[in-house]
Amino acid sequence: MDASSIFEEGLGKEAANYTPLSPVTFLRRAAWVYPDKTAIVHGSRRISYREFYARVRRFAAQLRTRGIGAGDTVSVLAPNVPCLLEAHYAVPMVGAVLNAINSRLDAETVGFILGHGESKLLIADAEWAAVVAGATDITPVPVIRADDPDFGATADFGEIEYEDWLAQGDPEFAWDPPRDEWQAIALNYTSGTTGNPKGVVYHHRGAYLNALGNSLHFGLNQNTVYLWTLPMFHCNGWTYTWGVTAVCGTHVCLRRVDPALIFPLIRDERVTHMCGAPIVLTMLIHAPDETKCGFPQTVEAATGGAAPPSAVIQSMEEMGFRVTHLYGLTETYGPATLCAWQTEWDDLDHRTRSEKMARQGVHYATLDEMAVVDPETGKSVPADGETIGELAVRGNTVMKGYLKNRPATDKVFLDGFFRTGDLAVLHPDGYAEVKDRSKDIIISGGENISSLEIEDTLYRHPAVMEAAVVARPDETWGETPCAYVTLKNGAEADATDIIAWCRDHMAHFKAPKTVVFGPLPKTSTGKIQKFILREQAKALQDS
Amino acid sequence: MDASSIFEEGLGKEAANYTPLSPVTFLRRAAWVYPDKTAIVHGSRRISYREFYARVRRFAAQLRTRGIGAGDTVSVLAPNVPCLLEAHYAVPMVGAVLNAINSRLDAETVGFILGHGESKLLIADAEWAAVVAGATDITPVPVIRADDPDFGATADFGEIEYEDWLAQGDPEFAWDPPRDEWQAIALNYTSGTTGNPKGVVYHHRGAYLNALGNSLHFGLNQNTVYLWTLPMFHCNGWTYTWGVTAVCGTHVCLRRVDPALIFPLIRDERVTHMCGAPIVLTMLIHAPDETKCGFPQTVEAATGGAAPPSAVIQSMEEMGFRVTHLYGLTETYGPATLCAWQTEWDDLDHRTRSEKMARQGVHYATLDEMAVVDPETGKSVPADGETIGELAVRGNTVMKGYLKNRPATDKVFLDGFFRTGDLAVLHPDGYAEVKDRSKDIIISGGENISSLEIEDTLYRHPAVMEAAVVARPDETWGETPCAYVTLKNGAEADATDIIAWCRDHMAHFKAPKTVVFGPLPKTSTGKIQKFILREQAKALQDS
Repeated sequence: MDASSIFEEGLGKEAANYTPLSPVTFLRRAAWVYPDKTAIVHGSRRISYREFYARVRRFAAQLRTRGIGAGDTVSVLAPNVPCLLEAHYAVPMVGAVLNAINSRLDAETVGFILGHGESKLLIADAEWAAVVAGATDITPVPVIRADDPDFGATADFGEIEYEDWLAQGDPEFAWDPPRDEWQAIALNYTSGTTGNPKGVVYHHRGAYLNALGNSLHFGLNQNTVYLWTLPMFHCNGWTYTWGVTAVCGTHVCLRRVDPALIFPLIRDERVTHMCGAPIVLTMLIHAPDETKCGFPQTVEAATGGAAPPSAVIQSMEEMGFRVTHLYGLTETYGPATLCAWQTEWDDLDHRTRSEKMARQGVHYATLDEMAVVDPETGKSVPADGETIGELAVRGNTVMKGYLKNRPATDKVFLDGFFRTGDLAVLHPDGYAEVKDRSKDIIISGGENISSLEIEDTLYRHPAVMEAAVVARPDETWGETPCAYVTLKNGAEADATDIIAWCRDHMAHFKAPKTVVFGPLPKTSTGKIQKFILREQAKALQDS
Repeated sequence: MDASSIFEEGLGKEAANYTPLSPVTFLRRAAWVYPDKTAIVHGSRRISYREFYARVRRFAAQLRTRGIGAGDTVSVLAPNVPCLLEAHYAVPMVGAVLNAINSRLDAETVGFILGHGESKLLIADAEWAAVVAGATDITPVPVIRADDPDFGATADFGEIEYEDWLAQGDPEFAWDPPRDEWQAIALNYTSGTTGNPKGVVYHHRGAYLNALGNSLHFGLNQNTVYLWTLPMFHCNGWTYTWGVTAVCGTHVCLRRVDPALIFPLIRDERVTHMCGAPIVLTMLIHAPDETKCGFPQTVEAATGGAAPPSAVIQSMEEMGFRVTHLYGLTETYGPATLCAWQTEWDDLDHRTRSEKMARQGVHYATLDEMAVVDPETGKSVPADGETIGELAVRGNTVMKGYLKNRPATDKVFLDGFFRTGDLAVLHPDGYAEVKDRSKDIIISGGENISSLEIEDTLYRHPAVMEAAVVARPDETWGETPCAYVTLKNGAEADATDIIAWCRDHMAHFKAPKTVVFGPLPKTSTGKIQKFILREQAKALQDS
């Protein structure tokens, strides 16, 4: 067991046999192998891999000219347009760190992020003029404005327009791979339901590995046409910003998640893959019939952020999609687990199959381990499908940590695992199923009730389009389930109908005691904001 | 450009976010996700992933019991049977190094390898009794004998039989991942056409990455059924020993490369993927019609070691295979480049398409760079398809180096690249094409003639089954091409026919001046042994 064995002597790392892993290398290769292939589609615009690489090198050269290098932060505030995709390569090419900012945040939060992340430069889409103005009032940062023909209007902020700026850069810029694959590549702020958001730091190694893992598990290859329904600012587009390039596929940009844009793009660009929160799928399902143009291919749709309700899976399949359920967090570079298909599920009835598919599943091949642990002891819970524990993962696609926030990092790195904060069970088949965020579990009369289970029942009601369940404080029971429901266009149901439906389809004590109708508050990534509903449910009691 | 940026402080490696990359982890995951799925098929035997993992842990426990650990070498001498596949996981589980020995070597060479590699244990298939006896006379090593019902007979060597030995091991053995991903995982000896073979050392990091790269480029997934036509001792089966497990596919063992076994297995086990040297493809093509049972699926066949002649590609396609051309060496963990498909090739005529496909192509996404360099200066040659240089690669899937042979390592690690020793051109489309091994180029009247080009012409002759061309010393020309040819069963052709065919299909000066008929000498991996033919060609002159 001696370290100095015959296999070490004279067998060290050198330039020929060791390179720091970096997803930036995928672009160099794609430009070499498929120079004339369309790398990026944006409206009527086509950018080949040769051009993509040249544009990115111009971009990197311009960063270098401004003195931006290793450890510097470059922020981008834009929808899914080429400049944001290009930043995923140009920024790390000079050793800098990409901070893709959630484009639906208010100026104050953006200002906080620019300051906390110590941003050296902000590149912002022209549509975000007002946010940029407010944010740079709080934190002054040099700005470059990106105009977009698809937006139409321009604005008068910024030192220079992005395309003009690129034009001044050197398309042959000699870039450096990172000296160390542990070097930071991205800084992504969590949405932060309370207090200021936390800055999650990714490194080149993790981005490289998760891009490969995602490509492998989602079946990407050089024929892949990937539609950008998932925001690139969201965990760097679950690392598909790099993964699609790794397989030399085509990126189809999308300025706005709008079914009237999405369906024609799927048909015309022959889209093969897309990702998005269940809300995106719901939006497609409930789009007006006239926008739902058909397409001949089957589109692989990966969804995560919340379990896809069975009705959503069924409707998507009927429209020509195949749904895969992924699970992850900002802290895990996006997807960390998938609900891997088992052959015997082919023969299950739709309902049972959807129940299997709604589980978060098993860890990626590129992640090291997944466990469901007792939050107190850190020990694995039995795989009985009943004992609730906390979902935990470990491996190279877990963040470096939270920026300038070691106490927060220490809270989630426990016993050699990253604790997700999601409460889950482990089924006898080894698949994890998230029952709730720690704070989403409802404790009524001493019984744990999963808000997700009630929501799944609600989604199966024929009149329900969306549903969210939270705890409502109750003097007798401690808490009772309170359901917030949006009905389908033209559908009708009252609280009595909804409660009766739940009592018919699940244990009576789990049925909601209160039902509130109306639109649901959502985050920019389409997640329902339960913390707002929890506040509302408290107010109900007080009233 | 300061290393101590905000992205370093408090953001170091810890157990939650850093694990050394190791392909051994793929098996733990496969046993978790698909415990009941068939992992290994061997004759009538079926081993599930649960059993596979348990057997491997027993195996590792037994190694530990013998005191075998980090930096120790464990040798295996066996055909493609379960014990060799299992060794790919059990040996690295205890930090030891797997030395899979070419099963067609003579006792003397095996004895040399056991000594040079400082082997602590040899596990050998019963059929290899005589080689084991001879080899352990030269280098005494403890031996475990593996019987195989498919071989039938047993033998009386070794301390214990493999299955009996496994039965004593702990199926719950707690194994350690490597402390460092740079730790050695395998030791593979090159065939060594002159002098003693060189020991090529692989590490966990490279094995992990090439297994993922192979899975991605060859389109493997959980439905993959991989037939072991490629020897596992050959670059650890091009790392598919680990890659197939990474995607939770099924390994179909094969004791002997015999079309009478292969065709029924393809049909009955629904094989989706297989690999092999072109000689394996040739063997399938020329198998008697009665053994060529049909199968409904298209089988992906990757070939390497030599470019597949166009006639071979065409015949394979007619039988239901799709051929992919890979290229690599023992020093690059097997495949390092592939002839990546370009959509526009779909419309080419068969001949032109085959010419495209016969090229070695472009580097894997998991390799860093490929170049064709001037052997003297190390500078890239122009991409003109004409200038001959040496093919060179760099990246994490290049060996650690040659064991106990720093001078040999220094000869091939030059200017930050691994020099393959293969002479190639770079085409304008960025694809490399190997023209010859350095020593295979024929220089006739000052002109460089590629022996591969002549061979490709010979393969298109309707009577030719196999061909190899070497230089024959010549007083006037310096060298002239000398063709060694095997005719198809029942086909007839004489030297005049063959030479006339070549003159009709290529520049006259490239046509062979001499044609010799008969079987061709081959290595255990099916490569034609040109060094023997070169000696024969010299003797022709002397006679």
